[in-house]
Amino acid sequence: MGGNSNRVESFSVRIDSSDDMAMVNMHVDQAAADHDQVVHKVSLPPHQTTLKKLKHRASEIFFPEDPLHRFKNQTPFKKFVLALQFLFPVFEWGPNYDLKLLRSDVVSGLTIASLAIPQGISYAKLANLPPIIGLYSSFLPPLIYSVLGSSRHLAVGPVSIASLVMGTMLTESVSYANDSTQYLKLAFTATFFAGVFQASLGLLRLGFLIDFLSKATLVGFMAGAAVIVALQQLKGLLGITHFTTKMQIVPVLTSVFKNTHEWSWQTIVMGACFLIFLLSARKYSMKYPKHFWVSAAAPLTSVILSTLIVFLIKSKAHGISVIGYLPKGLNPPSTNMLFFSGPYFVLAIKTGIITGILSLTEGIAVGRTFAALKNYQVDGNKEMMAIGFMNMAGCCTSCYVTTGSFSRSAVNYNAGAKTAVSNIVMAATVLVTLLFLMPLFHYTPNLILACIIIAAVVGLIDWQEALRLWKVDKLDFLCCFTSFFGVLFISVPMGLAIAVGVSVFKILVNVTRPNTIVLGNIPGTHIYQSLNRYKEALTVPSFLILGIESPMYFANATYLQERILRWVREEEERVQATNGSALKCIILDMTAVTAIDTSGIETIRELRKLLHNRSLQFVLANPTATVMEKLFKSQLLEAFGVGGLYVTVGEAISDISSTWKTKAKA
Amino acid sequence: MGGNSNRVESFSVRIDSSDDMAMVNMHVDQAAADHDQVVHKVSLPPHQTTLKKLKHRASEIFFPEDPLHRFKNQTPFKKFVLALQFLFPVFEWGPNYDLKLLRSDVVSGLTIASLAIPQGISYAKLANLPPIIGLYSSFLPPLIYSVLGSSRHLAVGPVSIASLVMGTMLTESVSYANDSTQYLKLAFTATFFAGVFQASLGLLRLGFLIDFLSKATLVGFMAGAAVIVALQQLKGLLGITHFTTKMQIVPVLTSVFKNTHEWSWQTIVMGACFLIFLLSARKYSMKYPKHFWVSAAAPLTSVILSTLIVFLIKSKAHGISVIGYLPKGLNPPSTNMLFFSGPYFVLAIKTGIITGILSLTEGIAVGRTFAALKNYQVDGNKEMMAIGFMNMAGCCTSCYVTTGSFSRSAVNYNAGAKTAVSNIVMAATVLVTLLFLMPLFHYTPNLILACIIIAAVVGLIDWQEALRLWKVDKLDFLCCFTSFFGVLFISVPMGLAIAVGVSVFKILVNVTRPNTIVLGNIPGTHIYQSLNRYKEALTVPSFLILGIESPMYFANATYLQERILRWVREEEERVQATNGSALKCIILDMTAVTAIDTSGIETIRELRKLLHNRSLQFVLANPTATVMEKLFKSQLLEAFGVGGLYVTVGEAISDISSTWKTKAKA
Repeated sequence: MGGNSNRVESFSVRIDSSDDMAMVNMHVDQAAADHDQVVHKVSLPPHQTTLKKLKHRASEIFFPEDPLHRFKNQTPFKKFVLALQFLFPVFEWGPNYDLKLLRSDVVSGLTIASLAIPQGISYAKLANLPPIIGLYSSFLPPLIYSVLGSSRHLAVGPVSIASLVMGTMLTESVSYANDSTQYLKLAFTATFFAGVFQASLGLLRLGFLIDFLSKATLVGFMAGAAVIVALQQLKGLLGITHFTTKMQIVPVLTSVFKNTHEWSWQTIVMGACFLIFLLSARKYSMKYPKHFWVSAAAPLTSVILSTLIVFLIKSKAHGISVIGYLPKGLNPPSTNMLFFSGPYFVLAIKTGIITGILSLTEGIAVGRTFAALKNYQVDGNKEMMAIGFMNMAGCCTSCYVTTGSFSRSAVNYNAGAKTAVSNIVMAATVLVTLLFLMPLFHYTPNLILACIIIAAVVGLIDWQEALRLWKVDKLDFLCCFTSFFGVLFISVPMGLAIAVGVSVFKILVNVTRPNTIVLGNIPGTHIYQSLNRYKEALTVPSFLILGIESPMYFANATYLQERILRWVREEEERVQATNGSALKCIILDMTAVTAIDTSGIETIRELRKLLHNRSLQFVLANPTATVMEKLFKSQLLEAFGVGGLYVTVGEAISDISSTWKTKAKA
Repeated sequence: MGGNSNRVESFSVRIDSSDDMAMVNMHVDQAAADHDQVVHKVSLPPHQTTLKKLKHRASEIFFPEDPLHRFKNQTPFKKFVLALQFLFPVFEWGPNYDLKLLRSDVVSGLTIASLAIPQGISYAKLANLPPIIGLYSSFLPPLIYSVLGSSRHLAVGPVSIASLVMGTMLTESVSYANDSTQYLKLAFTATFFAGVFQASLGLLRLGFLIDFLSKATLVGFMAGAAVIVALQQLKGLLGITHFTTKMQIVPVLTSVFKNTHEWSWQTIVMGACFLIFLLSARKYSMKYPKHFWVSAAAPLTSVILSTLIVFLIKSKAHGISVIGYLPKGLNPPSTNMLFFSGPYFVLAIKTGIITGILSLTEGIAVGRTFAALKNYQVDGNKEMMAIGFMNMAGCCTSCYVTTGSFSRSAVNYNAGAKTAVSNIVMAATVLVTLLFLMPLFHYTPNLILACIIIAAVVGLIDWQEALRLWKVDKLDFLCCFTSFFGVLFISVPMGLAIAVGVSVFKILVNVTRPNTIVLGNIPGTHIYQSLNRYKEALTVPSFLILGIESPMYFANATYLQERILRWVREEEERVQATNGSALKCIILDMTAVTAIDTSGIETIRELRKLLHNRSLQFVLANPTATVMEKLFKSQLLEAFGVGGLYVTVGEAISDISSTWKTKAKA
């Protein structure tokens, strides 16, 4: 007990003899010493078998949200009901459904239908598919989603990005104009694989894979895609007939300016008017969110108006191409169109996976956004299964890839949708259109579809977000930047791949060259903080306290060893230059070393040996559970012994200085 | 001041009213409160411009060891001398060289020469090159290394892994038997690119890239390569003449057992005897390291003995194939063999890069190992340049890829080598051999080369290390395992690529699913530690303290949000079940969150909002410098305000509880 007090005394004198704050510190240690509590033992984590650890790890990877927690302590009947509700969210909200909710849903359902019909036709064109496929895709998938989906605001149907990517990838191998059957087959098969891929991500609970498309990447990607899509619409807006099928910016612009003789002034004038109308409506609704219906109704209004105009002046409107004949009737079955072999099989899988992942990303992100606004939870893995099954059913009934659309969901939300019934109302409206109103679209000019697409994709260019990325995080901006230019100049899949590569590289750079900081004591406290950041922090004589801000992996083991030795060298030089007391002990604060591998362990072993050879003490403070376990298993823990590990930097300093003091006395 | 004491009082009552340890705590806070120091402000790191940060970052990435520090504060002449020593380490040790050092170096030089000559011939055969190339490669490169290299113990020359890989990769396209000129051209050009690649890694200070071949990966890779090489030597050992040129285990074994009619009993008997001799010598020297010369001299002894035997019984030894005629004379120039176009150009670059990276890894690792043993430093980037220049010079003088060999360097070290002069002595011995002794090798049987290779590569199979990996780190073992089987069953480059992929995946898994821990207070201290690990740690009523053990990136942002909400839910359930005091505040310990990106920032913003909606307070403790900066730039810092950030968990708890107390009173 007497020894203990001695140790504490010496410590408090050492750390700060010039300031009366030191008294506080002494006070603490004295008090603690009276309870024999100065040095705590660093605990190993409770022992677990490899199997148990694997199980725990697997449950963290695949079931982080513990989806079965609500089944705990329930009667079998209640469990059955819960399971039913879990599988079919419709049973969750269905029983409480009432007229008031229905009224909201009908209003919002009709509103999104007025948007979905023209957009469905336009997006199908974007995918180089016949316009009717877009309407088919706006009918059945929303019905399926309303039973399986857990979001209350998602408006389901074709979306621009997935349509664009499918169109590009398929057209590079097969042209719809030359071989329409093969193209349709490819589109449905790709949709099938998109659905299978989506559903299996959800089933296998691998939903986290879509997280690798970071928001920064998506901002760049969507902007790039939007620019390309908008430029491609110049075909319709200018009335050009010979246009490239490629998706890079260079061939698209070449097509536009090489075919100036095909430009049709009637088309241009009419297109410009409607485009201005649509963009102004959009702008207006953005300024006054309450008048969301202005931009929601604008596309249908434009379609009706332009169709009327063309119908009235049809004899004089040679330059203006129209949609033409559209068959009446419901979705025909398309199971016979799916194929699982042949030269295009790989292309179908590839297109399926890429459009699948993109539409999933959009659908999940949209679902999460509106769920957060209304404070309910959307289960990512369940949503993936819902979207996946919807596409698998869709591909058998002449639909192509569908998901939750951002623009229509926003309108749905603003129009007061309360449940997935709004999707049912929308599907019913599309049904009526399919059964009775198709002939009305005969004279709808193609240019109006181009206008609708442009007005929709302009919203995808979020330059403010890009600016924010630049301000907050340069590497995130780099991701955004590469995916934008990758999509514009190389290709959609390559652009995405490069952006994911940059994202991963970002993680690796941080791991390869982690921060190391020198810590100092904040007088009057037990707090040890970066000397660089906290001006009040002071170095502790004879100690060098280093904090490593990263796991220790093979990728940084050599660097950390060199860097730590350099810190030691620089500290020794500094001490020599300032005539301070000689460096005697290096403390490594391991709080932020959240993981270690065998290379990291070697580095610590090596450092210990090298510093020992130079008669410097080397101790670790606050190793995390994982690190302790590895140190133990690699037998390095024994080498460090009792005196080599401390729970905190403060305890390390107090204990080591007191040992010195004792030695000096002896 | 009065308010302050109130707050502190209430706090100490709260955290632990059942135990007198709490008194210590109160004591501390009381003391601190008297100095008005309860709450420290969390500092932002000092402001730096983007350019300055970029510069700092670049210097950390490329110059972590601050190579110019020795030039500081020196006279121009001294600087010149230092620069010379920096570029040519020979000037560093040269001036102090004396007879005593020379004696050691001559002994070790002769010893490694006796090993280098038979190994040089054997390894050239491994690369499917004529044996003489192996001797050429043991002459010039060591001379160049002795001037440029900074290791004192590296024995330079051809090595098994690089030879094997070069042989495999080239033979898949060109066979030496069919087109020897093309094969030689390819080998020299690949060596050139290996050299260029190595030197540029060093010059551009990208040496850290070789760290991505972690030790675990290399253990598996080398073992796989060793197994393949040893099996391939069955060709020589069994006397088979028709043998596959492929490198996977399946075709090699097929070759062995399909051609049993070609097996020659004379070869088998002789081979078995010498193999047993070599392996026993190796075993003996491993047991008695002082008798290292036993295994060092064994190969040369075997060559001499076997050559004599074959020479004496040549009329009867039909089955035993011999090396045959070897030209006398020095390295002929081979600059005219280099090519920079044509169909094999890509193959030459690919082979160059892969053999370059492998030989670099071996050379650097060997250099570092012996430097650590003798307590001197080897500069990785400088070594890369030395090895690179040595190969670039080598490819112009009929040498193929060379580096520091592990086995010969070990012998060099044991034989007492003191400086790179031992390499010069070795080169001189090889010179004498090349000029005068080549005819002596005419009757050397090929089987002895096979024996030497097998005895050498057996040492590469480090199953004990693999076992240790399994014990300490399962994921490291997985890297080792995949590279082993990848090399055996797929191919050398693919095996390596897969192993690197697994290594990177290991980092990503850790980032994607990081640990979150619940912290509790260790009574009587300011220490907050994992409740799971430290049995003495206690929860603080009304608080949930969570530690996140990972950076917050796009890859884990969603997971962390869900996981934290789950902790909150579980804590609320626990509180309800135990009738504890209701959860009021969540503290996120950010000490180990060493980096954050825009997705991570969004997660914190989102969490704040969601918890706020549930009337829960949400504060951060000890954000690191990087995180603070990002929080500030994204304007999230303002949202948190003064009361939302604390330097330590302890201060957060003390301050927040005192606020509650004040409110309750008011």
